[in-house]
Amino acid sequence: MSARGAGNPRRVERTKFRNELAQQLRVDSIRAADAAGSGHPTSSMSAADLMAALLDGHLRLDFDRPENPGNDHLVFSKGHASPLLYSCFKAAGAIDDAELLTFREFGSRLEGHPTPALPWVDVATGSLGQGLPFGVGLALTAARLDELNNRVWVLCGDSEMAEGSIWEAFEHAAFYRLDNIVALVDVNRLGQTGETMHGWDLGAYSARARAIGWHTVEVDGHDPERIEAALTEAEATSGRPTAIVARTSKGKGASEVENLPGKHGKPLQDPATAIEELGGVRDLRVKVSAPDTAGGSRTFSPTGGETARFEVGESVATRKAYGQGLRALGSRRGDVVAMDGEVSNSTHSEQFREAYPERYFEMYIAEQQMLATAVGMQARGWVPFASTFAAFLSRAYDFIRMASISRASLNLMGSHAGTAIGEDGPSQMALEDLAAMRAVHGSTVLYPCDANQTARLLEPMADREGICYLRASRGASPVIYGPDEEFPIGGSRTVREGDHVTLVGAGVTLHEALEAADRLAEEGVRARVVDLYSIKPTDTETLRRAAEETEGLVTVEDHWPEGGLGDAVLAALADAGASAPVTKLAVTGMPGSGKPAELLSQAGIDSTAIARAARALVPDSASR
Amino acid sequence: MSARGAGNPRRVERTKFRNELAQQLRVDSIRAADAAGSGHPTSSMSAADLMAALLDGHLRLDFDRPENPGNDHLVFSKGHASPLLYSCFKAAGAIDDAELLTFREFGSRLEGHPTPALPWVDVATGSLGQGLPFGVGLALTAARLDELNNRVWVLCGDSEMAEGSIWEAFEHAAFYRLDNIVALVDVNRLGQTGETMHGWDLGAYSARARAIGWHTVEVDGHDPERIEAALTEAEATSGRPTAIVARTSKGKGASEVENLPGKHGKPLQDPATAIEELGGVRDLRVKVSAPDTAGGSRTFSPTGGETARFEVGESVATRKAYGQGLRALGSRRGDVVAMDGEVSNSTHSEQFREAYPERYFEMYIAEQQMLATAVGMQARGWVPFASTFAAFLSRAYDFIRMASISRASLNLMGSHAGTAIGEDGPSQMALEDLAAMRAVHGSTVLYPCDANQTARLLEPMADREGICYLRASRGASPVIYGPDEEFPIGGSRTVREGDHVTLVGAGVTLHEALEAADRLAEEGVRARVVDLYSIKPTDTETLRRAAEETEGLVTVEDHWPEGGLGDAVLAALADAGASAPVTKLAVTGMPGSGKPAELLSQAGIDSTAIARAARALVPDSASR
Repeated sequence: MSARGAGNPRRVERTKFRNELAQQLRVDSIRAADAAGSGHPTSSMSAADLMAALLDGHLRLDFDRPENPGNDHLVFSKGHASPLLYSCFKAAGAIDDAELLTFREFGSRLEGHPTPALPWVDVATGSLGQGLPFGVGLALTAARLDELNNRVWVLCGDSEMAEGSIWEAFEHAAFYRLDNIVALVDVNRLGQTGETMHGWDLGAYSARARAIGWHTVEVDGHDPERIEAALTEAEATSGRPTAIVARTSKGKGASEVENLPGKHGKPLQDPATAIEELGGVRDLRVKVSAPDTAGGSRTFSPTGGETARFEVGESVATRKAYGQGLRALGSRRGDVVAMDGEVSNSTHSEQFREAYPERYFEMYIAEQQMLATAVGMQARGWVPFASTFAAFLSRAYDFIRMASISRASLNLMGSHAGTAIGEDGPSQMALEDLAAMRAVHGSTVLYPCDANQTARLLEPMADREGICYLRASRGASPVIYGPDEEFPIGGSRTVREGDHVTLVGAGVTLHEALEAADRLAEEGVRARVVDLYSIKPTDTETLRRAAEETEGLVTVEDHWPEGGLGDAVLAALADAGASAPVTKLAVTGMPGSGKPAELLSQAGIDSTAIARAARALVPDSASR
Repeated sequence: MSARGAGNPRRVERTKFRNELAQQLRVDSIRAADAAGSGHPTSSMSAADLMAALLDGHLRLDFDRPENPGNDHLVFSKGHASPLLYSCFKAAGAIDDAELLTFREFGSRLEGHPTPALPWVDVATGSLGQGLPFGVGLALTAARLDELNNRVWVLCGDSEMAEGSIWEAFEHAAFYRLDNIVALVDVNRLGQTGETMHGWDLGAYSARARAIGWHTVEVDGHDPERIEAALTEAEATSGRPTAIVARTSKGKGASEVENLPGKHGKPLQDPATAIEELGGVRDLRVKVSAPDTAGGSRTFSPTGGETARFEVGESVATRKAYGQGLRALGSRRGDVVAMDGEVSNSTHSEQFREAYPERYFEMYIAEQQMLATAVGMQARGWVPFASTFAAFLSRAYDFIRMASISRASLNLMGSHAGTAIGEDGPSQMALEDLAAMRAVHGSTVLYPCDANQTARLLEPMADREGICYLRASRGASPVIYGPDEEFPIGGSRTVREGDHVTLVGAGVTLHEALEAADRLAEEGVRARVVDLYSIKPTDTETLRRAAEETEGLVTVEDHWPEGGLGDAVLAALADAGASAPVTKLAVTGMPGSGKPAELLSQAGIDSTAIARAARALVPDSASR
């Protein structure tokens, strides 16, 4: 107890309680890890005083009503400190001691790193450097969409401050003047293998944060009075976010581990002694305040039944149809929001931006923060559509991966996919996006070939669970479907009937396949053409029939050979127990710049290559 | 010309020349984009004065000997300013005017964004936020490996300062005290769609850089005298890197576009007028200094013929074998270097670190900078091995993608892959890594199942072109191969002969397949077991034979169903024209925490599930 508080009995009482509570959180962290036989107790113990103070008088969270929109959000960016988080939940009465001790057991909600399997966890963490960006997403949602007065509290580790994504989050929080987010940086000096870059140099962190526009407070992270003052200061700060940079000791309070290297990520060897040093097991309960229940969150009313319709035969880029379709969707649904990585004039999300500026968020060239923002917004029930060049979504791949663990439902549009972009060259081509996106758990991968199909697909995307990805093309292509046709997710379209050979394409290559079918028809080869616009889930039945009814399939994709459309077809056929020769056409050599037609030809995915591959599958086709 | 220089005739001359040179660079940028019909002239024009000063007296680059180790490196982090880069090459006499005008043509070396198709380009750029990290990799190589006195000059755009990866680079350059790198930040205020976060607030950038430990100079980016002073100051600064933060105008000098929104990434409408405003076409030649040729770069001598050998029957984790194997490789090859994302005690790269500290680099938890460092090191002929948890390599996926466009040869090890890690939960599992890595152009994907195999595979990896990825497991597994066996990349091992059914596994699942084969044998089912340790390239011939000689294949992988081992097998069979029933076992539901065996069972990829799937493929197997 500091001298400052000595004169005030309430303050003395509070400090005493918080010290006890912090010791309980440490003891429970040790106990949970001991029960599990693994976990990160020392990383939990350093932040126990910070959490004790937060729970006791600052956090406003109705544990009985986790769906209350007015609840604060508590994000453990250092997700490995899960024993501390779960010990907090126990202290708050949300879980009991028996459940605490199921930590990391098969079937337990208390996983090694927090996930929304627990109703008080908004986002999964455990990949360092993501919790603060997610927190910024939640804070932006509260400030600019929900218009709520709650706060987002994010516990960061010092090791993870080395992740660039953390600085994207700092930047965006300052740019959007989010005074409803507080980062608690637990500077315990020790990473997994040794000292962090900056050790206990609190100034290193606060100087960076201040340079970006944050308010900062440096504290002794084990002094309840200082922590109290810092939290109060954070709450009183307006117009900018606050970082509380706290000097702490890893493993605080247990001599076996305190401030010692080599003690990361393992249970204590002698928990009994440590628990004794910490004053034994306690069963304190902290009353966490519930938020004021007055007032709900903002909603936007539909403005009208605008639809995006295109005439058959028109030439329209699918990215353009995305922009129009998204604006139309925005007119019909108030819950749709959009964001972009500073290329909204290329992705055409600018159409939404111009129509619904309150629901559009400029994420600048910070794709990781863009994904994190989308995750934050969907956690509060909004339906985000985030867009950039398909190639640059790869920058946020770890965030997409973690979003699936967060059970997030959100929509991504990647434009300018494939060699068909032409002159810009391979850095902009995204020849791996289908593979990467297919390999996201529960994902949906769509690749429309025309404007009406693009616009129509946005509608089921908005209602779909999980991560939906729509791949769009740079160049214009002819509209081949009418504006009232429907394109169920998981479906396909047989755009040309034929019983000799089946050509399977999507997006750009569907048009090449149609051209190939025309040429083949002249030669007497009847090619069936399947538009596999839904790459995942895949229309297995249509492919099975094609395998049975024709001599073989040619798949063609503007993508590397691995993991894309062709592999999806092969997997579907294997699933169906169907067997047929399949020739997979894909991009094999590294492209350079050139005209789209030149690059499609060089890659061997144009109509000429498709027709050649088809002929090879049809016996005696040359003699027809 | 500024008043300061008026009294000095040499200075006046120099300023005059540089002004003229800068105008030429602008004119040539306009001409190149005009010839191409696309490109980014306005983003080039803003930085022309910076480049004119750099070429004329600061850059030391022998264009005739691009392989000279003493050469400075010039990296355009804003890769879209390629017209400026190519105009610099022309002014330096490296390319002629006719080639300049092939910009973005099919077959031209002058691609839309720079790639090492040009001998003076070390690394491909075009995905913003990567050039500075690559530059830091090159600077670290020069300072700590090659021990050369050259410099790395990186031209950054202001828009890309929003990428977190830029701040990882700032952080690492300061941490390693790299005074051989200079970032030239071209603050032209305008991004693609509008103003950047910070507009012309130079202080926003320099405050951030200074907080991190860089020396900074703010200049008028169109004042040759100020630029000269800044470059000289950067060259004189020791112990820390320098950022020259330059206020510039996008499209400088052409009234059609200068400092106007909506002029990004397109040729000028009236190039003739702009060229006239800029003083017409010139053909100035700038003599770029060659570096002092004295002294080569440092090399390390092999220290001995250590090998990593394990006894058959021992229980060893493949990640541990990686550490021992890497140390052994380091003893035999002086060109092998290693780095890790602050988990070297988990990946066991600590074994290399302890043995060869001069060749080990701690990248902290900054996977993007880790990849960029590896790219920089291989550009100078070193053979990097970079390791972290497989899950966290996804953070650097865009860097891996770009590394393949850089034609980089480097090695990645991802540990703790699969549900078999157990208690840590899905955030650490990397169930998408095989798909993501297979979809990298020219990549090699390896997944060893035992310690000797792991150690042996490192040897061909070190000699292999392209990006090699080795997936390693957390838990110990029995050594099944002798220490002198060889495992060629592209091969497989048939570890059990059988003619009823084929089980294909790798890594963790190979052991489950062997156990299943044992059980099946008891039932009279003769299962062949194939260890597909080389997932890419795939041993098509062995799989074809299995398809012919057995009733069907069961593939089993600790990975999502999409794009991994199973899809690789299906693709190989389709390639070979082979047809057989294939049952793909993979992880379909989102795992939680649990014991490895519990999670393998839940996922349906353990020996029980494999045996069940095998039985279903073998007619009447139940009655045997």
